[in-house]
Amino acid sequence: MTLLDALDYAGVAVFAATGALAASRKQLDIIGFVFLAAVTGTGGGTLRDLVLGQAPVFWVSRPVYLVVCVGVALVVFVTAHLVESRYRLLLWLDAVGMAAYSVMGAAKGLAISGSPVVALVTGMMTACLGGILRDLLSGEPSVLLRPEIYVSAALSGAGGFVAATLIGAPLVAASAIGVALAFIVRGGAIRYGWAFSPYRPRPGRPPEDVM
Amino acid sequence: MTLLDALDYAGVAVFAATGALAASRKQLDIIGFVFLAAVTGTGGGTLRDLVLGQAPVFWVSRPVYLVVCVGVALVVFVTAHLVESRYRLLLWLDAVGMAAYSVMGAAKGLAISGSPVVALVTGMMTACLGGILRDLLSGEPSVLLRPEIYVSAALSGAGGFVAATLIGAPLVAASAIGVALAFIVRGGAIRYGWAFSPYRPRPGRPPEDVM
Amino acid sequence: MTLLDALDYAGVAVFAATGALAASRKQLDIIGFVFLAAVTGTGGGTLRDLVLGQAPVFWVSRPVYLVVCVGVALVVFVTAHLVESRYRLLLWLDAVGMAAYSVMGAAKGLAISGSPVVALVTGMMTACLGGILRDLLSGEPSVLLRPEIYVSAALSGAGGFVAATLIGAPLVAASAIGVALAFIVRGGAIRYGWAFSPYRPRPGRPPEDVM
Repeated sequence: MTLLDALDYAGVAVFAATGALAASRKQLDIIGFVFLAAVTGTGGGTLRDLVLGQAPVFWVSRPVYLVVCVGVALVVFVTAHLVESRYRLLLWLDAVGMAAYSVMGAAKGLAISGSPVVALVTGMMTACLGGILRDLLSGEPSVLLRPEIYVSAALSGAGGFVAATLIGAPLVAASAIGVALAFIVRGGAIRYGWAFSPYRPRPGRPPEDVM
Repeated sequence: MTLLDALDYAGVAVFAATGALAASRKQLDIIGFVFLAAVTGTGGGTLRDLVLGQAPVFWVSRPVYLVVCVGVALVVFVTAHLVESRYRLLLWLDAVGMAAYSVMGAAKGLAISGSPVVALVTGMMTACLGGILRDLLSGEPSVLLRPEIYVSAALSGAGGFVAATLIGAPLVAASAIGVALAFIVRGGAIRYGWAFSPYRPRPGRPPEDVM
Repeated sequence: MTLLDALDYAGVAVFAATGALAASRKQLDIIGFVFLAAVTGTGGGTLRDLVLGQAPVFWVSRPVYLVVCVGVALVVFVTAHLVESRYRLLLWLDAVGMAAYSVMGAAKGLAISGSPVVALVTGMMTACLGGILRDLLSGEPSVLLRPEIYVSAALSGAGGFVAATLIGAPLVAASAIGVALAFIVRGGAIRYGWAFSPYRPRPGRPPEDVM
């Protein structure tokens, strides 16, 4: 198992855990746990493979990824009630998965397209999509619309990996830099509320008032 | 026309009808009917073909599927007011489409990947995605988050088909078993409220209370 | 740069601007602007390329599209507060992007599949998806569910282009006809509230009352 494989399994497993935690917050049944775990765990990588022209996608070629999602969902189903704050755990696991996936997505995008810009986007997309799908399907407020930094952390991870690779760092070092950057930025956002100053002038009015 | 083709047209047509019924509940115009019918009818199969690497997808190769969706939308547009409970009809048609698609998706996944696990997932995905897209776009509460069994019924259909195929049943028998299983499970859920016991311990708190 | 390339850049740029305007209405940070601009600008074309089997998709082959989205997001970030009604501007830019994309999508669909029906659908899909994703992700009410004509305008543009092409019009003329048709229909809907008579009989009841 290569380093990128390990990152990939780690990303799938922790994202699957966040999906199962969202299911537990919504008090779904066991199949709901498995479904949300699988969608969250594989969603980002599926879109990454599709836009890069790598179909059949990764979990069709290697179904063991699906087995990982099912296993994680079962473990969360029997242990989630032990956790003091499931939403806080969800956020931190999400940060780990996002960090792993920002590098995985960037590495695959760079390898296939050769373009650093594309690598940044596939890294960001892979890291963010699982969480977006989870929040949409489970009716949680989207991580994207929360005030703290999220997309920027994914971009930092992808950017760190791409920059390190371009200046000749070996794969292990570049990956470590990318994962660490993404996790530190997102961790700071969760722990200390790091945020860019938002766009302030004035909030949007409801469409009815405008038309 | 083979058996699988017939199942496929049936799945597209009844899912298209559920999309058009959702449009009638939201009082959209005729183009809204056609749009929701087409998205609901072809959504699941489109994702199935994409992840399996079968692009261009089925309705690009055979545009007659789109004609079916348009025809169904027109029929529903002029007849929906005759129906006593459109939501109840929507649920039952959705059950028929879901049963047909769980087998179609599993059959295509098994044929292309050779993996039973992948076949379960493509069956479940094909069967559920049309309804998810319909509910998201029309603002109905998602069938996934309702308490009765849904995803499990799709999984039963795909599982019945795959199991029967693996022990050597001919295609017709395996398909019949799968469709019947999925429809019975979902029908019981609609008629008698069948449900797994949900995950109970305690509901999730709003993110603001946790952070 | 060919005519279709120009239409494509125009479509990406104005859709990106609508995404950034939605971000400004929601008071997101600069990365939120870039993210919504990129998703809105490239979403429709990405799905179009995927269903037509043209992966890697357009922005992987030509990353400059992404640079356009980032540039547009930055411009909107520093200028959006100058606009009297950002929602009105969003609607008009959306109309321009929709018109350009209805023709682009139809042209690519016709070239690859040879089927006019498929071309209508890829035109409609490419034109509508960016806006749907923008509205879903930013929590705005979907353009699709608003009473005025939207999908029909995209269909007019795709239909005008396909019809003109089938009777032998050169590409420039067919494109101009399609773009003009789509923009006039949508513009009339925004300015004068053009709408089909909606489906009237009675609104849908909440699912709880029906079951």
